[in-house]
Amino acid sequence: MKKIIITFLLIGPYLIAAQKKSDEIMVASIYEEVLSNSPIYESLRVLCKDVGHRLSGSTGAAAAVEYTRQLMIEYNFDTVYLQPVMVPNWKRGPAEILKITNSKKHGVIGLNALALGNSIGTGPQGILAEIIELKGLEEIQKHKDNIAGKIVFFNGPMDPTLLKTFSAYGSAVSQRSSGAAKTEPYGAKAIIVRSMTQSLDDVPHAGSLRYQKGLKELPAMAISTKDADLLSQLLKDQADLRIYMENYAEMLPETQSYNVIGQLTGTLFPDEYIAVGGHLDSWDVGEGAHDDGSGCLQGIEVLRVFKSLKIKPKRTLRAVMWMNEENGGKGGKAYATLSEIRNENHIAAIESDRGGFVPRGFTSTGSDKQKQQFLKWKTIFEPYGLHDFDQSGGGADISPLSKQGTFLIGLLPDGQRYFRYHHTEKDVFEAVDRRELELGAASMASLVYLLDQYGLTH
Amino acid sequence: MKKIIITFLLIGPYLIAAQKKSDEIMVASIYEEVLSNSPIYESLRVLCKDVGHRLSGSTGAAAAVEYTRQLMIEYNFDTVYLQPVMVPNWKRGPAEILKITNSKKHGVIGLNALALGNSIGTGPQGILAEIIELKGLEEIQKHKDNIAGKIVFFNGPMDPTLLKTFSAYGSAVSQRSSGAAKTEPYGAKAIIVRSMTQSLDDVPHAGSLRYQKGLKELPAMAISTKDADLLSQLLKDQADLRIYMENYAEMLPETQSYNVIGQLTGTLFPDEYIAVGGHLDSWDVGEGAHDDGSGCLQGIEVLRVFKSLKIKPKRTLRAVMWMNEENGGKGGKAYATLSEIRNENHIAAIESDRGGFVPRGFTSTGSDKQKQQFLKWKTIFEPYGLHDFDQSGGGADISPLSKQGTFLIGLLPDGQRYFRYHHTEKDVFEAVDRRELELGAASMASLVYLLDQYGLTH
Repeated sequence: MKKIIITFLLIGPYLIAAQKKSDEIMVASIYEEVLSNSPIYESLRVLCKDVGHRLSGSTGAAAAVEYTRQLMIEYNFDTVYLQPVMVPNWKRGPAEILKITNSKKHGVIGLNALALGNSIGTGPQGILAEIIELKGLEEIQKHKDNIAGKIVFFNGPMDPTLLKTFSAYGSAVSQRSSGAAKTEPYGAKAIIVRSMTQSLDDVPHAGSLRYQKGLKELPAMAISTKDADLLSQLLKDQADLRIYMENYAEMLPETQSYNVIGQLTGTLFPDEYIAVGGHLDSWDVGEGAHDDGSGCLQGIEVLRVFKSLKIKPKRTLRAVMWMNEENGGKGGKAYATLSEIRNENHIAAIESDRGGFVPRGFTSTGSDKQKQQFLKWKTIFEPYGLHDFDQSGGGADISPLSKQGTFLIGLLPDGQRYFRYHHTEKDVFEAVDRRELELGAASMASLVYLLDQYGLTH
Repeated sequence: MKKIIITFLLIGPYLIAAQKKSDEIMVASIYEEVLSNSPIYESLRVLCKDVGHRLSGSTGAAAAVEYTRQLMIEYNFDTVYLQPVMVPNWKRGPAEILKITNSKKHGVIGLNALALGNSIGTGPQGILAEIIELKGLEEIQKHKDNIAGKIVFFNGPMDPTLLKTFSAYGSAVSQRSSGAAKTEPYGAKAIIVRSMTQSLDDVPHAGSLRYQKGLKELPAMAISTKDADLLSQLLKDQADLRIYMENYAEMLPETQSYNVIGQLTGTLFPDEYIAVGGHLDSWDVGEGAHDDGSGCLQGIEVLRVFKSLKIKPKRTLRAVMWMNEENGGKGGKAYATLSEIRNENHIAAIESDRGGFVPRGFTSTGSDKQKQQFLKWKTIFEPYGLHDFDQSGGGADISPLSKQGTFLIGLLPDGQRYFRYHHTEKDVFEAVDRRELELGAASMASLVYLLDQYGLTH
């Protein structure tokens, strides 16, 4: 026994060093494979240009399910299948009008606007009302007696000085998601929200709201940041400014859709799962290129790299395209529920849902022990420009897995450009850079390789 | 004496910690100022859209000199002046033709091409010749007997697997800069070069070549990567493929131009200088947005931030727009020469000439002592996403200052997208992201603040 211990003490460090070296070589091969041979950019082009946007319940969503299923069959994954899930079926409707009707300076002014996802419409009678401008939900109390009969205009901007743009988004987005529910009790007639972006431009940003049970549902629209500034400016000189809103958004009954799953079955521990991917649905404007076509195809690319480099995974790897992240999260919930029923042990799940930008690190959420093991790999990624491993977080679609103790990981790309495109007509194929997309995929594949090699104990 | 030493040992660490804290607060203010109030994005729009491209000797270059001079006068810098410099005056000429004339498969095929900067033209008689394809200068020797009377087609690609894209560029670019001089002795008639980019597209990339004294000058053009692949493919099946080249490029006599300089004079050590900026000239396609409108306006922004935050610099700060980096480097040389004549002690110079992308660090070149002082500041930048301080390098325009012992620094932005745009019609205002541009400027201003506070001993 003593001999064994001494032997280990002598050669242990060399074994660990040799193992690390071999991991580094494999990671280098993965990056090389992706940067030399990846079809991901062309796949994204097809998903964006031939399929296009794909809100849950739309024909685009159905086409995206079929396209990604076929793609994974073509790559010869061990199993490719659809997981049924019922999803909300919200439609924007045929026309959207938002205009200032009585500006003393300019008369009638059309505004660049989009109905918020899940919002009801006004119908053909429209809504004409005066406006009250608030900078955030926290101002409701102060102005609660001045809300009745008005359109509430939430104009709190995303803080441009925050380097973490998702923090700026997180601080501002409650206006969009809860503005309607929070002002309805005070008699608001409708909601207008400043678009969630630090850019100053004419592009309205879609995104969902949540109504509250028992309260009346109010129509809600987002306007571009330039129009928000204009409206705010005009209101300073003319308190009786009125806005006319007309749209035909409606929530239809739930409809059938699917998560799309491709699998490489583990050779040693097939009952341990590592899921990796993004959400297949997008908003009904643009092409869902960054949000989240990139994440879906990066998930598929991870498994393709294993096939191409002939790495037989020890554990079972799944590329998952979750459905309905944008306005319900039904796909993520269904996946976790079915996983529990089938006693699948997900040791880790990686979601890419922050755009196809150059990777800067990974977020994570799990036990201290999991995090410690995970952080050991940080130095392997630093030569590839990934330095940020400290932020917590995983992803909306994988978060329901946390109940089973899964270590949740999010790809963390550079976030500076994301909110130029997020939920807009500008989120198109051309907004994604090939190398940045590929580097994200290579980073995810490398991490999956390490997770597969060493596992992760809870 | 003992008492003093003991006192220092006791409170020294606290003083250093307090100083670091105060530096961190100032750097935070600088980032906040730039991200909240910077006019840099609008200035870049004017430089790109109203001035446009600006090759040395062009009317665009003259307009850019005047625009940046006026901008710095408007910002009320202590001194704003022009530094005369004679520059090459190369003109592309009225028409450029490059076509395959006898493809058995496709007949005549026009190719996307641009004459290389400094190249002579073919004149109206053109050049019609067969082609020999080489993958790099190192293949010349092997094929030297097969070059006479032919157009040499250099088709060595930039290595897509290198994460450091500038390394990939550095390895491939000798084909463009020296291909003509190196093949002339073997009787080549003209040169075609695969564009310097990892992208596969239809966009030819300009860039300069250098002829060698005593050798005949050969006309040279760059072709798009897609056309390079096509040409290479066709050559495999048809060795007698011929290309016709016609263009009217010419080098006119040197002409008068200027470096543009704005200065904040130091309050404590006015004879110590810190220069910061980029090069004002660009290629004669696109708008020189990343290369190097961004760097010029970031240099100006650094001084504007000092003014705006009412920081009186101890040392003399100069925003410098060097002229003629692209095809001669005359501005950088003239600046260093004049600086020596006037005994100006440049303790440091910072150049931004790798595009207006999100900053990842700084390159540097200098003595070990300078580098040690510089590296102490690394931790101040890490929270802002700048981690890479290890690479050597400065910038083409500041390198002539190294003779006087100046510490040379280059802004190191993320390099993944740079070679999509470099020297092309795609390098336009719209290719620059506002936040990325601003973050680069804020990083430079923060570093200048630290250099100004603490100086740098050789």
